Order: sequence, then structure tokens, then C-alpha cells
Amino acid sequence: MAAAAPADHRAAALSALAAIRPPVGVIAERERLAAFEMDAYIQHRETPMAAVLPETEDQVRDIVRTLGRLGVPVISRGAGTGISGGATPTADGVMLVLTRMRRILATDAAARLATVEPGVPNARVSEAAEPAGLFFAPDPSSQVVSSIGGNVAENAGGVHCLKYGLTVHNVAGLRVIDGDGDLLELGGEALDSPGYDFLAIMNGSEGNLGVITRATLRLLPRPEATQTLLAGFGTVREAAQAVGAIIGAGVIPAGMEMMDRVVIDACERYMALGLPKAEALLLVEVDGGVEEADEMLATVRAILVSCGASDVRVAKDDAERANLWKSRKGAFAALASVMPDYYTLDGSVPRYALADVLDEIYALGREYGMVIGNVFHAGDGNMHPCIFYDANRAGELERSEELGGRILELCIDHGGTITGEHGVGIEKLKSMCLQFRDGEIAAFHDVKAAFDPAGILNPGKAVPTLKRCAEWGGLHVRAGRIPHPEIPRF
Amino acid sequence: MAAAAPADHRAAALSALAAIRPPVGVIAERERLAAFEMDAYIQHRETPMAAVLPETEDQVRDIVRTLGRLGVPVISRGAGTGISGGATPTADGVMLVLTRMRRILATDAAARLATVEPGVPNARVSEAAEPAGLFFAPDPSSQVVSSIGGNVAENAGGVHCLKYGLTVHNVAGLRVIDGDGDLLELGGEALDSPGYDFLAIMNGSEGNLGVITRATLRLLPRPEATQTLLAGFGTVREAAQAVGAIIGAGVIPAGMEMMDRVVIDACERYMALGLPKAEALLLVEVDGGVEEADEMLATVRAILVSCGASDVRVAKDDAERANLWKSRKGAFAALASVMPDYYTLDGSVPRYALADVLDEIYALGREYGMVIGNVFHAGDGNMHPCIFYDANRAGELERSEELGGRILELCIDHGGTITGEHGVGIEKLKSMCLQFRDGEIAAFHDVKAAFDPAGILNPGKAVPTLKRCAEWGGLHVRAGRIPHPEIPRF
Repeated sequence: MAAAAPADHRAAALSALAAIRPPVGVIAERERLAAFEMDAYIQHRETPMAAVLPETEDQVRDIVRTLGRLGVPVISRGAGTGISGGATPTADGVMLVLTRMRRILATDAAARLATVEPGVPNARVSEAAEPAGLFFAPDPSSQVVSSIGGNVAENAGGVHCLKYGLTVHNVAGLRVIDGDGDLLELGGEALDSPGYDFLAIMNGSEGNLGVITRATLRLLPRPEATQTLLAGFGTVREAAQAVGAIIGAGVIPAGMEMMDRVVIDACERYMALGLPKAEALLLVEVDGGVEEADEMLATVRAILVSCGASDVRVAKDDAERANLWKSRKGAFAALASVMPDYYTLDGSVPRYALADVLDEIYALGREYGMVIGNVFHAGDGNMHPCIFYDANRAGELERSEELGGRILELCIDHGGTITGEHGVGIEKLKSMCLQFRDGEIAAFHDVKAAFDPAGILNPGKAVPTLKRCAEWGGLHVRAGRIPHPEIPRF
Repeated sequence: MAAAAPADHRAAALSALAAIRPPVGVIAERERLAAFEMDAYIQHRETPMAAVLPETEDQVRDIVRTLGRLGVPVISRGAGTGISGGATPTADGVMLVLTRMRRILATDAAARLATVEPGVPNARVSEAAEPAGLFFAPDPSSQVVSSIGGNVAENAGGVHCLKYGLTVHNVAGLRVIDGDGDLLELGGEALDSPGYDFLAIMNGSEGNLGVITRATLRLLPRPEATQTLLAGFGTVREAAQAVGAIIGAGVIPAGMEMMDRVVIDACERYMALGLPKAEALLLVEVDGGVEEADEMLATVRAILVSCGASDVRVAKDDAERANLWKSRKGAFAALASVMPDYYTLDGSVPRYALADVLDEIYALGREYGMVIGNVFHAGDGNMHPCIFYDANRAGELERSEELGGRILELCIDHGGTITGEHGVGIEKLKSMCLQFRDGEIAAFHDVKAAFDPAGILNPGKAVPTLKRCAEWGGLHVRAGRIPHPEIPRF
């Protein structure tokens, strides 16, 4: 926990912010600052020195320069829905809250682009594009609330990123204020941008490299037709193998979600949906032209059956489709009814490793005597194991966190990573030491210093110091992520 | 021109390279070094201090560390087909030639990935993937010769990048040795990679941030069907408008190439193809499922006619398709018959600006009294104006370069950029000063220093110093690339 700022330091910051012209909204009263004391990572809360709410890019620049001169940390925040603690305040820092910058600035149906301010909620972009038959593909489950700036900063995913990519794949350009208070224009509408490609690096940089003031988003045509299937399997392994078989057959579903027995039972108790009796469910959605979607539906159904599915249901219309999605969409609410508390992990593995990794997760659960349920984006190997615990029992929270760490190590061992779509924030700093070599972590810090020499942008998030890694026991897990020669040839 | 290294400096470097174990091939004889004195940017040649030809990643690491200790510049090179001078030697530097690292290390048909060494020629990847029904999409015209490392370093494009993206969009992971001699593993097979996303930044970094030792490439399924059309238009503007209309109708062709009258005439004289009598030709290729390709063909044909095409030819089979492509593929050879010399530019503009930019290019040609022909990737706004000149006439080369600079300024003015797919190298350093703000160029240098603190990797390429920009007259062109509010709403 950062020490609270000395009173004179705080007074100097508030007075400097008050001098910005045109005046910018500042919140300094302790009660009103409670709204910003944590994001959706609820394990840690702290009251920031102040919150500042700019309405223009120029004000953002002036805020960064003003606080930079005083050495006061700047923590950017949108709607605060991030669940890895990327927008956790520090007592010596100021929250830069971007929710007042929520204009859709420009839309271009022919170029399929929308340029928006960072505080625009994700779902509003697709709403605005709807009359033109377009949509913005990234759809984190927080999409009604979570804002584009945060989506970009955390490189958000969603159900449909198997086919349409993460946020980084759907952003054409950004305007950013870096740690020096300089405006950087990244990417744009033209094919290529010379110089080093800073666009991707800003996606997922968790407020560490710059403050996003404007984003140009790629829009996609709404598919003509959608088909949805729900299949029950006798084993988790069969369901996992079906995932690989579908992709291997050349079908890229719009979504391919898996739920195991723990989740199925919770959904059934919570919502009485009449789900297939199964050890695992696979929910597959395909979209495209009418004939294309029909063809993919037939292919997927045949593969599901050949992989051992005992009960395959196909939605006949939108109402049935909504019904098939009910279990998946209500799963996390249902899980909350199983046990008082659960801890949701986020890691990713190569698709071929899914079945083995799931086996090993269940084995770890038995070792720790803790129940683990799995409901996740199986198509892109983005796992969300949920560890159940009772926070009122001494040591259970700590054991769930330790087990979580072991599961993330499993992901690394199988050529995967410690994140899928939730970011690192403060939650996964320790796991970063397992994922990366010393030289790689040093390179992250060097690049951070290039964009933010004074280190005032969201310090302490996303990348651990090498010193902390050493204190935590150094780098004891390593697996190459770039395939080695032993992988089979065509 | 860099000063030649003093003899003792050179002797020290050669002796240090000779100490690497297992021994690495070194070329030090002046005659044999002639092979490396330029790449395909033929305006500049220089003999390097030496060339070194590693066979393994460990040798690359040892070479970078060895030369780094001595402060000797390291210039990476593959096949040397780059046309912006990215692999131009300096007299005080060593060429790191990666052509002996040419193994395809791992291929995985189910995951659609191939992992290769940097010296593998582009076309060999698709050849290897062919039995599995897959291909590697980036197809620079040099693809039979040019190697993957260079393709990544220059973020190469090609005819098909309208639909399938540039190299950066087709690379899943990289292994890189940075300027400190540290191994960085970037991206990989899993959905997300935590930490700052260094994968995209390495694409197009022109050997400035690291030496690529291994690339994991995304492969795509070969399309079932392809349809090709060639259409003649009475004006260049009509052809340019047809480009926008096709994309606006929701069709993304695999390729959409344009040629103007200068190019048509040259092709006709050179190859007697019986092309449509027209001011501009548009060559459109669509691919996909059989029905899908037929549908797109019908849509494209109708749009071409409604935009004023007088003569639309559709290939009935592969032989006719090859025939329709002859003009485009032979265009540059044909242009060489028009005038003794020509200078090919590479810039990109938003698609909506194509017609206006072409008008202004012709006006500039008239102003300079020089002929300009246009043959280019119209679908993604990647222009290649060819300026004809006679190098034997005093001042003509310089005038062509000045005119080229004016055309790149035009691209910037219209929201575009000074590159499309050829990179910056040494050719476009000056134009970089027009494209970027001081703060942006400073950020490029800061990031370069993060990866290469001693500045030994390909110094002087890709990004100009701020001092040179100031000497050249500072930043006198600026246009925002991230759209401003005046763009029309849906």
C-alpha cells in the first residue's frame, strides 16, 4: 500500500489542478472519493489523493503535465469494471477519470470506422453502428457499462473473439497522451503506418504507457444468419476434443463455449433450464451468409456427434437461441449460489492442450480439496476456472489464491499464458515472474520508461519489478511459447 | 556515408567473431563482400567491414553480444530484396546475413501454424503448407526470393493483403535477439500474451529493435474458388470510385489492382495483350466458397458496370485468369521500356481519397514536366506512382526525388502515410519528418533505446534524428491520421 501523500504535497497537486484552463472537474472530498477506491478487483481498496474528470484531450494533456511536474502518479480509469485491479488507486496518486469524455466523434459506414472518446461504453458503439448494418465485435460481458478506453487498455475479449479477435484486432487508430504529456497519433485509416508500430503496444498496456484520448474502431457487417447448437458430452475430454475437431475441419465459430458438470449443476439448480444430462456442455454459434451458416451448422453437428455428443440441440429461432445461451450467460450468477465465494481465473492455452490442462486442473482441485468449476471460451483456449472457497474460514482465501497460481503455472507449462482477456493489473504480478525471463521483464520496464520517463502513469501495475520477482523466488517456471522443432509436420 | 573502420578496430571485430564457438562463417575479403554492398535500393552502395553468416540462434546471440561489446554496428540482412535501403551496409558495420538459417522447424495443420527460421524464402512456406490445403497469405512480388525475416522486418504486403492483411497480421509469434543479446519470445500460440505487446512493434522495425531468429506464421485455408475480372474505364476517377463502391457493398476482394493509361500503353507495346481501350483498368479477384465467389463476382460485375466500365472481362478458367493478370504482373518490366529510368514510390491513402489524390499526382507531374504512371493496390489505397526520368540528363534524378517527396506529402495531406509496404529504410528518412511530430519521433528513438541501448542494431535506418529533421526544415506538413469530428455520421 502506498503511503498517503503528505498534506502539503496534496495541497500543491490540488492547487495546480485548479489552475488548469478551462477549469477541470476535481473531486477531493474523502466521502466522494469512495466511488474510486477500487475497480472490480475487490480484494484491494485504497482512497486516492483526488479524482480529476477531464472533458477534452487538451485537459488530459494538461493534467498529465501538471501532475508529472509534481511527480504525482496518474491512474486512468473508465467505468471501473476491470477485474485484475488495473485501475486500483494509490493513496499518493490521482485518479484520471475519463467517463465525461463520452462522445462518438465520427462514423464512416463506407470505411467501416467509428472514432470515439475513451469514456464511450462498448455497447453504445454497436448501437450507433446498427442503422448502417455494422457492429463492433469485442463484447466483454461488461459491455453495457465498460468503456472503450478501458477495453483498449486491458485488450478486452469476449464471447466472439474466437472469430473476430481481441480488442487489439479491432482498433485502427488511437490518440494517446504519453507520460511526457506529448500527443501520439498511432495507426490510422491508411494501410501502413511507418515508424515503430505503437498501436498494438498501447492495447493491453493497462494505462502504463499513455492515456487514451480517442480511438478509431473497426466495424464489421452484421452477419446475415446465425445458427446455435448446444451439445452434451459424457466426458470433459470428449468435449475438449470436439473443440479441436471443429476448428481442424475449417470452421471458425463466432463462439464456442464450454461448461463442466459443476457449472451445469449450478445452472440447473439456479435456473431449472432442463439442460442435457452431461459431464460437459459445448455451446457453438456459427454466423455468416445464410447458406454458409447452414453448411457450418451441418458440419459442426456431424463433428459433435462423431466426438461422442449424446444430446445435440439446435435453436430454431432467436427465442430458442436466447434459451440455449441462458446457461452460459447466467453461469457466473449461478455459481455464486454454490458457495459463498469464488475466485475466477483467466489464462489461455493452445487449443490442442485443452483436454490435458482440464485433467490437471481437476487433479489440482483434488490435491487442495477445493471444488473447481469451468465455464470458458473453449474455442480460443481462454480458460476461466472458478475456485470455490469460504472467505469466513481462516486461510481459505489464501489457499484459493495459491491454487490459482498453480493453475496459471499449468497454463505456462502447456505453452499458454497467465492471461486471456482480463489483464495483469495487480492481481497477476507474481505470475508474470513465471511467464517471462529476466531479460523480457527488463525490456518491459525499458519500454515503459521510453513512454513515461518519470514513471507517473499507473505505477506498480501490469509488470513486476525484477526485485519483487527475486523476492518471490525468481523465475521457476519456463516453457517456450514459440514452438520448438518437435511439433509434427504436416 | 559512415567512415571506414580503422584497421585495428576491424581486426578486433574479426578476431572476436573468430572466437565464437561453434565457429561461425565470416566473410572478410573485399571482393566477396561486394555481394552485400547494397540491397535492392540501388541508389546507395558501400562495402561493409565484414559479413557473418550464423546457422543457429545461439550464434546470432553471440554475434550481437560480441559486436555490441566492441560497439560495432550490426546490419541484419536476408535475401536483400528490400527497396528502401533497410539493409544498406555501412563501412564501419558488419552484415549479419541470415540466409543459412533456412529450416522450416515445425508445422501444425490443426493449429494452422508454421514455425520457420528467418532465412526461409516466403514462397517456400506456402509450398510446404500446400499438402495440408493451407497457404501463407503475404505475397510480396519478391516472394520467390525474399525471406521471412526480411518480410517481418519490413512488414511486407502484396497483392492479397487487402483481404488477408500485411505480414504483421499473419505472424503469431517471434523469437528475437535484442540489442543486449537477450532472447525475447513475443506472442505465441495462446490467445493473449501479457506484458506489453512487442509482437507488432517488431514487425516493420527494419532490424532496429532486434534480430529475428524464428517466426511462427499463421496459415490460411486455400479458397475453394477464385473469380477474376478485368474492367476498362473512360476516366481514372470512375475506376477509383468503383473501388470504393465495391468495398462499400460489403465485398472484400482478394485483390483489387489499378493501372492507368501510361501503364496500359506500356504493357500493350511490351506484351501486345489486347487490353481494353481505356484510361484506367481495374483488375478484381474474389475468392471463397464456390457459391460465395459466384455471388461476389455478380456483385462486382454489376458495380463495375454501374460505375461506368465499358469493357468487363471475366476469366472462365485458370488459363484466362493468368492472362488477365499478365498486364499487372508484367507492368513494371513493361514500364522499363518506356523510359531509361523510373522511380517507384510507395505511399498509402484512405480509400475515399484515391480519386482526388490521383488527380493531384497528375497535376504535379504536369508541374514538373515529368510523366507519372500508376499501377497499384487500389483496394487498400497502397499507391505506387512511377516517375520516369533519364539519369543521363543532369538534375533529372534529383527532380524525380523532389517530385516523389511532393507526392508523399500529398498522401499525408489526405490522411495517409509515406509508406504502404516497402518500409522507410534510408530512402524515406526525410519524409518521416513530415509524417510525425517531434514528440512522436522522440518516442521512436526512446523505444529504440529500450531494445538497443548501445544503438548497434542497424543505426541510421527507419527513423531520422530530430537534428536531421531540423536541418531539413523541420515539420512543415501535418495532418491528423485519427479522424476528426467533421467526418459524416452514419
